[in-house]
Amino acid sequence: MNTQASIEAPVAGRLAQIREVLQRQGVDALLVPSADPHLSEYLPGYWQGRQWLSGFHGSVGTLVVTADFAGLWADSRYWEQADKELAGSGIQLMKLQPGRPGPLEWLADEVAQGGVVAVDGAVMAVASARTLKEKLQVRDIELRTQEDLLGQIWADRPSLPGNPVYAHSAPYATQSRADKLAHVRQAMQARAADWHFIATLDDIAWLFNLRGSDVSYNPVFLAFALISQDQALLFVAPEKIDATLRAQLASDGVTVRDYQEAGAALGEVPATARLLIDPAKVTCGLLDQVGGQVTRVEGMNPSTFAKSRKSEADAAHIRQAMEQDGAALCEFFAWLESRLGVAPVSEVDVDVHLSAARARRQNFVSLSFATIAGFNGNGAMPHYRATEESHAQIEGDGLLLIDSGGQYLGGTTDITRMVPVGTPTLEQKLDCTRVLKGMIALSRARFPKGILSPLLDAIARAPIWADNVDYGHGTGHGVGYFMNVHEGPQVIAYQAAPAPHTAMQAGMITSIEPGTYRPGRWGVRIENLVLNTEAGSSEFGEFLAFETLTLCPIDTRCLVLEKLTAEERDWLNGYHAEVNRRVSPLVDGAALAWLQTRTAAI
Amino acid sequence: MNTQASIEAPVAGRLAQIREVLQRQGVDALLVPSADPHLSEYLPGYWQGRQWLSGFHGSVGTLVVTADFAGLWADSRYWEQADKELAGSGIQLMKLQPGRPGPLEWLADEVAQGGVVAVDGAVMAVASARTLKEKLQVRDIELRTQEDLLGQIWADRPSLPGNPVYAHSAPYATQSRADKLAHVRQAMQARAADWHFIATLDDIAWLFNLRGSDVSYNPVFLAFALISQDQALLFVAPEKIDATLRAQLASDGVTVRDYQEAGAALGEVPATARLLIDPAKVTCGLLDQVGGQVTRVEGMNPSTFAKSRKSEADAAHIRQAMEQDGAALCEFFAWLESRLGVAPVSEVDVDVHLSAARARRQNFVSLSFATIAGFNGNGAMPHYRATEESHAQIEGDGLLLIDSGGQYLGGTTDITRMVPVGTPTLEQKLDCTRVLKGMIALSRARFPKGILSPLLDAIARAPIWADNVDYGHGTGHGVGYFMNVHEGPQVIAYQAAPAPHTAMQAGMITSIEPGTYRPGRWGVRIENLVLNTEAGSSEFGEFLAFETLTLCPIDTRCLVLEKLTAEERDWLNGYHAEVNRRVSPLVDGAALAWLQTRTAAI
Repeated sequence: MNTQASIEAPVAGRLAQIREVLQRQGVDALLVPSADPHLSEYLPGYWQGRQWLSGFHGSVGTLVVTADFAGLWADSRYWEQADKELAGSGIQLMKLQPGRPGPLEWLADEVAQGGVVAVDGAVMAVASARTLKEKLQVRDIELRTQEDLLGQIWADRPSLPGNPVYAHSAPYATQSRADKLAHVRQAMQARAADWHFIATLDDIAWLFNLRGSDVSYNPVFLAFALISQDQALLFVAPEKIDATLRAQLASDGVTVRDYQEAGAALGEVPATARLLIDPAKVTCGLLDQVGGQVTRVEGMNPSTFAKSRKSEADAAHIRQAMEQDGAALCEFFAWLESRLGVAPVSEVDVDVHLSAARARRQNFVSLSFATIAGFNGNGAMPHYRATEESHAQIEGDGLLLIDSGGQYLGGTTDITRMVPVGTPTLEQKLDCTRVLKGMIALSRARFPKGILSPLLDAIARAPIWADNVDYGHGTGHGVGYFMNVHEGPQVIAYQAAPAPHTAMQAGMITSIEPGTYRPGRWGVRIENLVLNTEAGSSEFGEFLAFETLTLCPIDTRCLVLEKLTAEERDWLNGYHAEVNRRVSPLVDGAALAWLQTRTAAI
Repeated sequence: MNTQASIEAPVAGRLAQIREVLQRQGVDALLVPSADPHLSEYLPGYWQGRQWLSGFHGSVGTLVVTADFAGLWADSRYWEQADKELAGSGIQLMKLQPGRPGPLEWLADEVAQGGVVAVDGAVMAVASARTLKEKLQVRDIELRTQEDLLGQIWADRPSLPGNPVYAHSAPYATQSRADKLAHVRQAMQARAADWHFIATLDDIAWLFNLRGSDVSYNPVFLAFALISQDQALLFVAPEKIDATLRAQLASDGVTVRDYQEAGAALGEVPATARLLIDPAKVTCGLLDQVGGQVTRVEGMNPSTFAKSRKSEADAAHIRQAMEQDGAALCEFFAWLESRLGVAPVSEVDVDVHLSAARARRQNFVSLSFATIAGFNGNGAMPHYRATEESHAQIEGDGLLLIDSGGQYLGGTTDITRMVPVGTPTLEQKLDCTRVLKGMIALSRARFPKGILSPLLDAIARAPIWADNVDYGHGTGHGVGYFMNVHEGPQVIAYQAAPAPHTAMQAGMITSIEPGTYRPGRWGVRIENLVLNTEAGSSEFGEFLAFETLTLCPIDTRCLVLEKLTAEERDWLNGYHAEVNRRVSPLVDGAALAWLQTRTAAI
């Protein structure tokens, strides 16, 4: 009651205020996406306007406000939460589903012919704005992107994060800043581009060998970059960079300018120039600053390709980080097993103890995302997060799903494991077995270099489909190197378009994480990270294979062993032998005993 | 020598003549695709202009002629043949390869700014013409499609085929003409289309329950159709339809008009109407006849979807046709085995005897494509055809690939099998084993109803990729019901774009035909046809599975049995038991003995 009342009242007031603004400005509908000027996955509070105005706290959702309607579009992950949080606010939950109109279609259909739609161009990608504009044009609806109408009423708006920026140095940074800049400049030349503007924070952190903590879980900082063949301008709040780092950057030809000056600098790009930008990764608000005569060259940021391909030196660090992460997991799982059925353990305890175990390891920096520890029904929500206010005790029988990861100076981890609690049912074990079969099938796969990654998805799903089971999320996402746990360009998901930029290349790191979700009952997911490695060439071309990077036992007590084929048993025994060989030197006592037990051959 | 001289001289003369025409008409470049007004796979001689002008006999290739250049673009299948046939003609072979400019790109790059490119719009799809026009516009090059310049010099042009049209009747036609027309009209209504124009011959033959033999192997006839809610106009040469059939058609509301009147009829579609056409399946020459005010509604022909989904009654006939086809194959293979190593057998003999065995079966109409019988190196050419002039003797050691099929009143077959000759090498057997693993993996697969078919390809390829092997063609094509052996909309090929229309639905028939080709040495392909069958539903949706339709032993003497998993052996033994059960009642003597031997469990 308390929580609800405290949200409802301000939301109603804010809606009334924004409707006054709309009326004053002659705007029929305001679109408020979950986005910031960097099109990041995690948003600093300053750009949580959609949350502030709607009271809905889910990380993804789109709000539309008109004079007589307010609707929030969210996908199925968030329906339960949105239902609760929007109750009584006057905002309708609009369920985002394939084949039903999303917010852009709604605007195109419902706003009056010749009307006006406003969105803050500072937080809308060029490509999205284009799509919206095309949809609206059909009925002569104008799209205004020049103003932040929400900002006019947001009195208590949080300030921008101001955490310090630091160098990611050798040996963990395995390529120098100068080399990376040279690489990007070469790619610019190949596109005959004189200038290149970057707004995505992971691209900037990678390119300049810098890290920060402005954004949860991603070791990045708020910045823009503008590169030419002889200049490299880094736009960042000046107080974030100390004199030493500033001098280092200068010696690599990098000029630091104020974060707020990026738009103005874009306006100074000469009219004769060709400017390379990624329309999906730059907002229209910024691009509008560029002079009309500048030639826009569109394409993926060269740094996105470059950072997806980890070098052998990177891989060596990642293998060490995985060993450290595996050791932390052994310590945690040994503790968990000693407690289950003996003393109370909650989902929050899992997060606390697992985070603590990671924090004790060498080169640990932070978590790479909020731990997902979901017991039974909670495990069926792929993006569940236990909180102090709302979480389950882990007791009785069932399955506990734990999806977690860490940022280390030498790599980023992301792993999901299933823990049997009490006596799991046969159905639960069958779900785990099937999911493991899918993970093994893809882990063992070889494939032609350059294959479009979405096309590999069926290999993981075939053993799961075999029993009329499927899951709604993708099977694999790219993972950075001490960087965002979600990165492109590759993605193993049959829902994704197999575009040319999704091609598999050596050095990419991807998750393999099939699952099964039975709403209200339990969820299963098993996840390892794998590295694309050269697997030789033949008269048929070059091939890649996956090296499994993640090092942690897969609990065989969750499995129906008779359902595994001989080949699957061999894979599992081989994997466990490798985990044991590499992690056992890093643990002792109960953790070592747990590791030995859980890696025993079947 | 003889052959070459006889091609060279006329080609040189024809090129000179067409260049005069180009100069006279102010055209810089002429594009001559391999196409006809129906965009068919097999072209009647009347539309073999590309072959006539170039001397290249391959079935697919594109010719470009300018004042000082003539080039023929062909894909890798045809390079050897084109090299030979173009030698001395003054026409360059332009190798069609990913990442290198095709004929359209060549025209856009090489024709002078502001120049003129001509193509006969009567044989170019609306969609292709659009693509070309866009490419040419960049440099202000005009595209003329109104005239058939080649026709002006083609004195000895063959006449149009004039074979009779006949009814495809019950019980083999399992849905009445009236029902099919009603279905298409319903689909038109759903798109708010008043008229619908069809140019594709298989759509027309299916819709009107008619068959013909104007085109090799496809039981179709030259026609167009124009449908409204109360009219159904069938444009076909009047002498092809006898009085009885004409009366039958009239009683179903079908009016027969002359083949040549289709364009004029399109011109009579009222200006207020909405006309449904498939831009990939109608030529711009015909669509240009439509008045400018008619609203064009673009989409796949409704008949293409409808005919891809075979009914249970169709499937029952197809199963019978497969039994007949299996019996023919048993008779042929028994004969072949009795002759190999005893008496001379050539690739042409294979074609002759196999065709004869099929011709003896119930309800046989014709072959469904030219038999491919390729021994060793010849098997490495996926589209090889042995001729009286050029073929191999089957002797010594190696592998014989036989890809063949028949048209029956109740279905269309397409099967590839490998025959061991003498003693195949271990490498040859490993290739066969791997390809069989791929075929079994996909044959056993279940998958969500509606999955985009190209996404299934990796399931067949994974066991082949496992040894760094791959193949350049798709894994599966749709197959008609006493209709074209290649039909859409589904296609199992990672090279194909997973567009929404490729979704898998119950009743579709598709080939599964992985392969391995070692140029100059041998080729392997194993192919069955499979039917999409309902596999039940669950909380995760509806699922489909494949029923294998093709009934013929897979020669285990080509395999390394130890390489098969327990699951693969089970599949093979189950398949052979089914083949034996269903085909043995239809054969006797040597054929029965062969069937028993070749279906023995392993």
